[in-house]
This record gives sequence, structure tokens and C-alpha cells, in this order.
Amino acid sequence: MPSSFDAIDVLAINSIRVLSIDAIEKAKSGHPGLPMGAAPMAYVLWRSFLQVDPSLPSWPNRDRFVLSPGHGSMLLYSLLHLSGYALSLDDLKAFRQIGSLTPGHPEFGLTPGVEATTGPLGQGAANAVGMAIAERYLSRYFNRPDAEIVNHHTYALVSDGDLMEGVAQEAASLAGQMKLGKLTYLYDSNDITLDGPTSLAFSVEDVSKRFESYGWHTIRVESGNTDLNAIHDALQTARSIKDRPSLILVKTTIGYGSPNKAGKSDAHGSPLGPEEAKLAKAQLNWTEKEPFSVPSAVKPKFQVIQDRGTELRNAWEQTLKRYRSNYPELAVQWDLCQSGKLPEGWLPDLNELSAPNSMATRKASGIALNAIADRVPWLLGGDADLSVSTNTALKNKGSFDGTTGQGRNIHYGVREHAMGAIANGIAYHGGLRTFTATFFCFSDYMKPSIRLAAMNHLPVTFVFTHDSIGVGEDGPTHQPVEHLAALRAMPNLIVARPADSRETGFFWELAVESQKTPVTLVLSRQNLPLIQGSSKDCLRGGYIVSREQSKPQIVLLATGSEVALALEVKKLLQSKNLDVRVVSMPSWGLFRQQSESYRSSILGPSSCFRTSIEAASPMGWKEWVGEQGIVIGIEQYGYSAPADEVYKKLGLAPAAIVDKILKSFPG
Amino acid sequence: MPSSFDAIDVLAINSIRVLSIDAIEKAKSGHPGLPMGAAPMAYVLWRSFLQVDPSLPSWPNRDRFVLSPGHGSMLLYSLLHLSGYALSLDDLKAFRQIGSLTPGHPEFGLTPGVEATTGPLGQGAANAVGMAIAERYLSRYFNRPDAEIVNHHTYALVSDGDLMEGVAQEAASLAGQMKLGKLTYLYDSNDITLDGPTSLAFSVEDVSKRFESYGWHTIRVESGNTDLNAIHDALQTARSIKDRPSLILVKTTIGYGSPNKAGKSDAHGSPLGPEEAKLAKAQLNWTEKEPFSVPSAVKPKFQVIQDRGTELRNAWEQTLKRYRSNYPELAVQWDLCQSGKLPEGWLPDLNELSAPNSMATRKASGIALNAIADRVPWLLGGDADLSVSTNTALKNKGSFDGTTGQGRNIHYGVREHAMGAIANGIAYHGGLRTFTATFFCFSDYMKPSIRLAAMNHLPVTFVFTHDSIGVGEDGPTHQPVEHLAALRAMPNLIVARPADSRETGFFWELAVESQKTPVTLVLSRQNLPLIQGSSKDCLRGGYIVSREQSKPQIVLLATGSEVALALEVKKLLQSKNLDVRVVSMPSWGLFRQQSESYRSSILGPSSCFRTSIEAASPMGWKEWVGEQGIVIGIEQYGYSAPADEVYKKLGLAPAAIVDKILKSFPG
Repeated sequence: MPSSFDAIDVLAINSIRVLSIDAIEKAKSGHPGLPMGAAPMAYVLWRSFLQVDPSLPSWPNRDRFVLSPGHGSMLLYSLLHLSGYALSLDDLKAFRQIGSLTPGHPEFGLTPGVEATTGPLGQGAANAVGMAIAERYLSRYFNRPDAEIVNHHTYALVSDGDLMEGVAQEAASLAGQMKLGKLTYLYDSNDITLDGPTSLAFSVEDVSKRFESYGWHTIRVESGNTDLNAIHDALQTARSIKDRPSLILVKTTIGYGSPNKAGKSDAHGSPLGPEEAKLAKAQLNWTEKEPFSVPSAVKPKFQVIQDRGTELRNAWEQTLKRYRSNYPELAVQWDLCQSGKLPEGWLPDLNELSAPNSMATRKASGIALNAIADRVPWLLGGDADLSVSTNTALKNKGSFDGTTGQGRNIHYGVREHAMGAIANGIAYHGGLRTFTATFFCFSDYMKPSIRLAAMNHLPVTFVFTHDSIGVGEDGPTHQPVEHLAALRAMPNLIVARPADSRETGFFWELAVESQKTPVTLVLSRQNLPLIQGSSKDCLRGGYIVSREQSKPQIVLLATGSEVALALEVKKLLQSKNLDVRVVSMPSWGLFRQQSESYRSSILGPSSCFRTSIEAASPMGWKEWVGEQGIVIGIEQYGYSAPADEVYKKLGLAPAAIVDKILKSFPG
Repeated sequence: MPSSFDAIDVLAINSIRVLSIDAIEKAKSGHPGLPMGAAPMAYVLWRSFLQVDPSLPSWPNRDRFVLSPGHGSMLLYSLLHLSGYALSLDDLKAFRQIGSLTPGHPEFGLTPGVEATTGPLGQGAANAVGMAIAERYLSRYFNRPDAEIVNHHTYALVSDGDLMEGVAQEAASLAGQMKLGKLTYLYDSNDITLDGPTSLAFSVEDVSKRFESYGWHTIRVESGNTDLNAIHDALQTARSIKDRPSLILVKTTIGYGSPNKAGKSDAHGSPLGPEEAKLAKAQLNWTEKEPFSVPSAVKPKFQVIQDRGTELRNAWEQTLKRYRSNYPELAVQWDLCQSGKLPEGWLPDLNELSAPNSMATRKASGIALNAIADRVPWLLGGDADLSVSTNTALKNKGSFDGTTGQGRNIHYGVREHAMGAIANGIAYHGGLRTFTATFFCFSDYMKPSIRLAAMNHLPVTFVFTHDSIGVGEDGPTHQPVEHLAALRAMPNLIVARPADSRETGFFWELAVESQKTPVTLVLSRQNLPLIQGSSKDCLRGGYIVSREQSKPQIVLLATGSEVALALEVKKLLQSKNLDVRVVSMPSWGLFRQQSESYRSSILGPSSCFRTSIEAASPMGWKEWVGEQGIVIGIEQYGYSAPADEVYKKLGLAPAAIVDKILKSFPG
């Protein structure tokens, strides 16, 4: 860890600043303030500490670096380019242009070296906690005394905005609880946010003291734009503190170098402008004439990163080789988990879920999840203080301990939003399968993180129980109505509301196998009967669970607990000599993926009268029932009372449904 | 403030406990642990401090009390009943039954004395911050040296779960920033949550230290179930500390009194059961044989609350009388704002919004909002560090200052979730109109609070700008796709996406006049042309902005920025001799409220071919275009690039839309 800095280091830092300025000027859009102010801390971290291999960004044992204030993306792109990642000057020149590797906010999976998609504030800081958890678990599971294949740090650069966000506060509190000693936040404390000085909204708070209250170690760097040694020493200290995460509060000047905009919110979110860019370069003693020019003198400074990375990775490859020969079975598991695969024989026998019992789908979920977890050692997850209710506790798997890395039940506490973002962090890290759990109503609390999981193809399983007015006595605050519609509208998210224990088991299999798509399981609190006709076809999104006698006059479409209700309705309609088909439609998204001919074979000919039955907002059902069909749903908030009474009160009793159907049925 | 407590006080506290036990036993459902553990602190607050008038729960100058952990509702119901509110023993016996005044979680507007609907954790704690802000603003605006008509405290009882939630952390940070000296949290610290001991997820954190880091004063009460004097002294001290909010951390035992469940998570969320209830009563030395019996000895103890309230309210009525005679104009304003009305002449001239200019609807919104704010002194609001972008700054109205109560711009900082919950608190308090503002994408961060606004009929205006892929370069993390669908599915929420500056003005008028329904304004970042045919009919939710020549063959339905796009598409279709109608449909919800004949007059006869155009998820549009019609929307996440290019890339350019229409058009 070289600690002496010279004029070339300053030039290297200015290279980051100037590349950022130039790219933002060219795009005529972007955020120069952060790259200019935070370049020194990022540079010192990358040059002196960060263990990555730019020629192999996916090296599993690399340190993770997350730029939580994603609007400062040019800081990261400049660093990636200068450090030798496959990100060219032309890529930087295409900043914020369609199809480029350099979008406005960093996007995971698109740009080599980007560890997480950031921009919505607070998320990256919480993702980093998930990465640190993943490292702990994997190191405990795989490392052996003679062959340590997992041992890395996780760094997040965080901003004032990040640390105001609740999701980051929840995550930091949990990181303190877990004593994640290999997690470090570099806090770019520049006293400026978009609207102006932080004195407007964030000046009374003593952030370091807050982090100490969480159980973090804290260090303060007073002159973050000039005192490289202080940054270096702080990072060194943070690495040496192993029993707690560390916050390094670095005082900086936003837009450092810009004579007229430095220290002002003007520097935050708009290009400096050609004139000011020129003045800034002059103030930084920048002598290159052309934009996007980097003095060759700085090359060796960044080469250090690649050299260190090559050396470390080579040593690691040697270790892995030894590991393969000493621990061949574990090595097989390592390869599987690193490629997102499951161990052979992972598929459990879930026959007990097909027993003709009445069972809440949350309970069936717990049985399926535990059976799978028994066979997949790299599956871990947790809940927001509700495992007793969500049935997601992994039996005999212990509570996750951040110090030892043991245990597979993550106790997130009542921190739903951080739970979502941390689960995303575990998925970003790689090597693990993970899930979260809470009540369906509180999917709202974590929606920003679910969105990022979907956008970034993170196969997290989000378990939501207590899925409807069936919650009963807890009343409207706890009874989801509009949540299914909200999640169904989200691109690349599988929303599944299984009808019984059997369907629940199949959806757990789908969830654990999913590679590129998060899955939400929406499960009942109340007992549901086994549907006689339910089958693995549920994974096609919609299928017939009860056929008509000869030619369907009425097709009932239902999900979850309402499939059993639809079967009762069918009985009543049959007694009126109507021929009725019942379709279980647990996932619109999967159903849409089927062929048109399959879909119409399920929905029935246009001559039949379709009715959807779902204890939720009617939004979107018209697509399936067609113009003549009717939608039976809920267009208000619920009531506090026993579930059956709430169903009745809201018109979801069999007789009332039959009445509605007969009123509209043209036949 | 009497401070000596005797055996009858203990009996009074046990009355709260036993009523709670009995109601939960009868309902066979509920949460006894909190009422049993927190009864002493709640009792001391109510008996010795709380300034309320049980005979007039709506007395404007009452102290506010919020039970943030709403699952402990029986604590509140017992207190309300015993203190003389219009909540009878029969009401308590109907706990958690349909139509009762005593639902599972407290519901605002239903039960006299319930100040906020709570249950989703963290919300109530944040609501209380809003109430304290409202008190500050109203006291500064209305009070005169000889006549102080606004001067009250705000108390929230908060739990471990509340304080883990990000929304409460954000709110507490802001309360510290604002130095809200008349806000006090009573923290029921019982070391137990639903899943077990807080050591699982919440034991490292030093909560008092955290609150000190926010700038709060903190006090600790060690024996919260027995030391009534300590609770009393702490509340006394909290009242005397005027320059900061106060946290009183009270150590308690959950389920205090229950011999086998006290101190265990078993006491949290299920009835004690008949046997244990009996044992608990014995341990509490309870001698009443019948359930729901209250010893008459405790009556005088609770009578104190009514007596104090009557006295205070009478004095206040005298003050108000003096106020009316000394400040007649202010008194008129007082009456108006207290009844949710607006001052005469509040409606501004918004003609400038009908000028044929290109203008972003966010900009038009800023003009309308400012014109209204100039005329409505009890309108205040703020943004999550984005006022420069959301155009919601109130010009020349100053920044809100929690010490003096001056200023009408609330700088929420990057705390969207607390912003929503605090705005709800302002609305719960009464006397003010309020709004919030952030980017539409971040509506997700505050969705739980929007839901509670809708459920509780709070007429908050939620402004969301940067409403679509039109955001451009900031890319997919900042480009809403599914958010319109998510909010449209929410009962009792008006979602409005105006097409131009003129429509925007009308929707601001609607929002400010709304009494029982929150309004979300979904506004563009980019400039939009004035739509020639736009008019006040936008408030009907859908209307024709461009008529057909004679008989419509094609009807284009669009919202927001896509109305102008639809007009371009119309031109192209006309050149192919097709007769086209264009409908602006800014609010599905308002459109649904119109008569069926109005709706079909707008949507056109079933013979015409309808196409919706909206840069968002297609979810739900089938309802409007019908079985034959087509929906043009976006079913993926966006791109980082200039807005026009993103539109083109996603198939929303006029020519591409025309192609799609012609491909499906049967004519």
C-alpha cells in the first residue's frame, strides 16, 4: 500500500476530473460536481487499495466498489477507463448517448467494472451491505485453512443525499448490528445538494455520531481535496478495524477546481459550460489542449492497479488450483454457485404439497423453501421481523452472523426497504441465491429496490404473504388491494399468486431456477383447499383447473385464494345448467409468454362469457375478460373483521358473484 | 401537573391493561403485549399532561397524540374509553369486528380521538413531525401577543419497529434539523419484536445516541413499568426543553403482568388465551370478576383529563372570542382554514398558462402553484431537495423555520418517504393545505404514505415531475414506466397527467380545492406545446381536444406529453384520408366518475377504432380501447439518451405509431 503521493498523483486525479468535465460538456448533460470533488478519495482508494483485475472484471474475489450517488457516473467511468477496463475514450465520448457503455447513471451488466446500478439515492449504500454479507457467507462456507478463496473488501462511495435516505439508514444500522468489518463507506461530505447548501435540510445532524450509534468505526478527513495522505491513512485504518464497518467522512468541495462554481449547487447537475470548463482546467494547471487527452505521465500511476490485480489474481488462481485438488467436492459447488447454477439433486420431492389438505400457501411456501434450502447450501435469505408469519425461517440453519459468516437466516429487522436493497447486493455479488419476506402490503416499502432487481436482472425471490383482504382483522392498512396491479406493471418481474400448496411448490422451483428475472411470490395467510386440477401447468401462467362438461358458456379466471372461490361459483352456476370452465391464472406475465394459440385455448372461444375473480384492484383484467366479460375485484380499501366477513362485505361471496355474472351473462 | 402517584393510579393503569386483554380475548385476535407494557407511560402522559377535551375531540388547540405502533390499538381505545371519549364499552367489545369503531389498527376519521391511522410502522412517528410543523406554522401565522390561539404539543408513542424503519429515521433527522421543541417521542423500548428479542436485529444500535446525533434531547427511564414518577419527570423535562425535540426512552416489559408471556415475543401478536389472561389478572391483583369491568375507584383519575380539558378549552374559547374582536380579518381566515376552505378570491388568473407557448408542465405547475400560494396563506409545502427541478419553490415565501414557524418552503432533504408521511401529518393536523414534490420515479420511495393519504382522505397534493422516458439522459433509473399504473390502481387517489400548461393550471385548482382525496400531478420535464383544444373539461378526466371531420374512424386516447404526439399522428392519418378524433385523458379516475353517456360520447361509437398512446406501461388501457383497439405503450425500461431518441427507440415516434395503427385498423 504505497502511501507517498507526488505531483503525478495530483495530475492523475486531475485526469479523472478533466475526463469527467469533457464527457459532460460533450453530452451537454451530466453532473460534474461530484467527480471533481470526490476524485481524490476515489483515486487513493483505487490506486493504493482496491484489489481488482481490470482485465477480468468478473474475478470473484475482487474488492467491490459501489458509487452510490450514481449521478456522479463520470467519476466511475473515468476511473474504469484510466485503470484499464475495457472502456475506451470513445466510450467516454458517447456519454449519455443511446446504446453507449456510459449511460447517465451506471448500469450493472452493461459496463465492465460497474458493480451495481445506482442513481436512486441510498440504494448503492445498501447494496454494499449485501455484498459484504455475501462475502462473509461465502468465505465461511468455502474457505479452508490452507486455501482461502473468498476474502475481499466492499467499498461504497456515498453522498449527503444517500445518507439522508431511509434505505441507507436502515442498511447502515443493520451493518452495524452485523459487525461487517470488511465494509467501508467513503462519505463525500461536501455540504451541497441539488437545491443548495445542506444547511437547508442536513446541517444539524452529526453523521459520524449517528454511525457510531449504529456501531460503526468512524474517521474524519478534513481536507479531502488536498490531503491525500490523510485519505490514505483513513483507508488503512478502516482496513485494520475488523470488528466493525467503517465510515470515513471526507470533507470536500463540490466542483473542486471550478473557479466560479466550486462549492456551489450550480456545480451539481449541469455541465460547467465551455467557458467555465476552460477556467477550471486552467485552475487545475491542466495543460492538455484537446478534450479527452490524458497526459502519458499518469499512465504508470493507474498501471499499478492492473499490476496489483494481475498479481493478486494469479496468486488466487494458484490457491484455487490447490483448492480444486484438496477439496474437489467443494470445488464443484464453487463452480456451480459462481455460474448461478444449482447443485445436482437440488429439486426436492414436494409430494406432501399435493396432499388433499387445506393449507395456507404461506405454509406451503415454507415447506418448499426449506426442502430446497436443505439441498442448496448457497441459498440464504431473511425477513423483516416476520418469519413467524411469513413461514420463511430456514429450519436448523441458524441466524446469519456477520462476524463468523455462519447461519443462513438473515434477521433484517423492521427494515423492509434495506432488505430489498441488501438482497439486491447479495445478488450483485454473485455466488448466492437469496430471498426476502414480509407482508404483501409492505411490498410498497421496498418497491424501489424491487424495481432495481427487475431492471438489473437480479434473480432475487421476494416472498409476500398476507396477500389480500384475507388478512382479516388487521384491517385496511394491512390488506393489499392495489399491490398486484402495481407489481404486474413492472417490466421483467414475475408476479405469481399460486392457488394452492401444489402451485406454490412449483413456483418456488421456478424462483430458485430463475437466472435473469426476480420472482415475487404472493401468498395467502388463510388456509386454502388443494385444487383438484392444479398442476405444473401453473408455470405457464394460466391453465384450466376445472373443465367444462362440453362447451364452455362461462369461463372464470381467478388467482390465488379466489380459484377455490371460483370453483364454488362454478358449482352454483352448474346448478343453473350453465357449463363453466375455471382457469387458474397465477401469473399474467408467464401467460403472456405463451403462444397465442395456447392462450386462446385457455381463455376459451370469444363466444364464451369470461369473468375474472380476484380480491384486488380490477386494473388490467379487462385485457383477459374481453369487452363483454366482467371483472370482479375490489375498488376500495378493506375492513377490519374476520376474513370471511370482509369477503362477504366486499361482494366476494359465491352467491353475490353468481348474481353479478347472471346479470351480465348474455346467454 | 400532579406528580404524586398512588395505588389508584396503578389500578387505573391496570384498567387499561385488562380492558385490552379482555377485548383481544373476545376478538380472539390482537396484540396484547404493547398495551400491557406501555400502559404506564401512556397513562402518565394522559393523566398529567395531555391537553385534550374528550367531549370535543376536534378542539383545534388540543395536544396531538399518535400511537405509531398501531397494532397496540387497544391501548389507545382503552385510554379513549376511560378518558370519556365517545367510545363505549360496547365499542370495545366489538374490537376487530366489521363496522365497529375499534378496528385492528386505529383509523383516522372513524374513531373519536384517533389522530392518525397507524399500523404500517414508522408512519405515525413521521406523521407526528408533520403535526408539530403545522403547529409551528399556524402559531406563527395566527397568534398575537394578546391572543395565543395555537400552542400545543405533539406526542408520539413509538416502538422498536418504528425506529428501525427508514421513514421514521428520516423524519426524526428532519425534526432535529428543524428544532421542533414541542415534539416528544415516548419510546417503548421493550427489546422484543414479533420474531423474538431485538438482539436478533436491533441490539447494537444506541438509539438515544442516534437521536442525539439528529439534534434531539434524550432522556432515559429505566423502570418504565413501575416508576411512574420517573416517567412524569421525563415528560416534565421534555416540555421544558424548548429548542429541540425530545426522545424519552422508556425501558418496559412487553406483556407486563402476564406470568408466562411477559418479556417474550409470544405476548406480541396473539391473545394471551383464557388461562393466561386469568393468570395475568391475578398477577396484576385484579379483582373484578367480569370481563370489561372497570373499578369505579379509577374514575376520578381519568376525570382529571376531562376536567383539565374543559378548563383549557373554556379559556381558549375566551381567547378566541377576544381574538375575533381584536383581529376580525384573521378570525375569518382562522374559520376558513379550520374548515378546510380557501380564502375568498383564492382562484388566480391563470391566463398566462393559455398562451400559445411551448412550456414544460412542471413549469406551468410552478406558475399555478405560486399564483395560488400568493392568495392562500395557509398553503405550504416542499420538496425532496429538487425544487430547482420540480419548480415547486414558493417565491418570496422563505424557508420554513421550525423555531419561529416562519417560511412556507419545507426543505425535506433527500427524504421522500418522510416527506410523504410528514405531509400526511400536516393534513391530519388540520388548518393547512400542503404539497410535496419529487421526480415521478421516486413516487415509489413514498408510496406507503401516498396510500395512507388516500385511505384517510387527506387532501395532500403530491407533485411528481420528470414523468416518463421524456426525462432523457438520466436514463432508466430515472424514467418512470410502471408508476402511472401503480398509482391508478390505488383507491381514492386522483392521478392527473395534464397535456399542457392550461390543463396543468386547472388541475392545480382541483388539487387545492380537494377535500377528501389526495391528488397526484404527473408533470413533464420537457417542453410541451399548448394544445389548441385543451380546456377545463380536462377535469372530467377525458375530453375531445381535436374533433373528427365528420365521423370518427379512429379515436386516439392519450395523456400528458403524448397528447401532442397524438395530434401529430392524427395529421399523418388524415393525409391518408382517415377521420381521426383525439382525446386527452389526463385522469382515468375522474373519467370513471362521469356518466356512462358522457364517457361513450368521448370514446366514440364502438364502430371506431381506438388507440391509446402513452409513454408508460400498457396496463389497464384495454379497458378504454376495447377488444379491437390497440394499446401503444412501453413494456421495458428506458434508455439514457436525449429524450427524442429514447421516444424513437421505444417506438413512440409518429411514423411508427401510424404504422402500428394501420396494421391493426380494420377499415
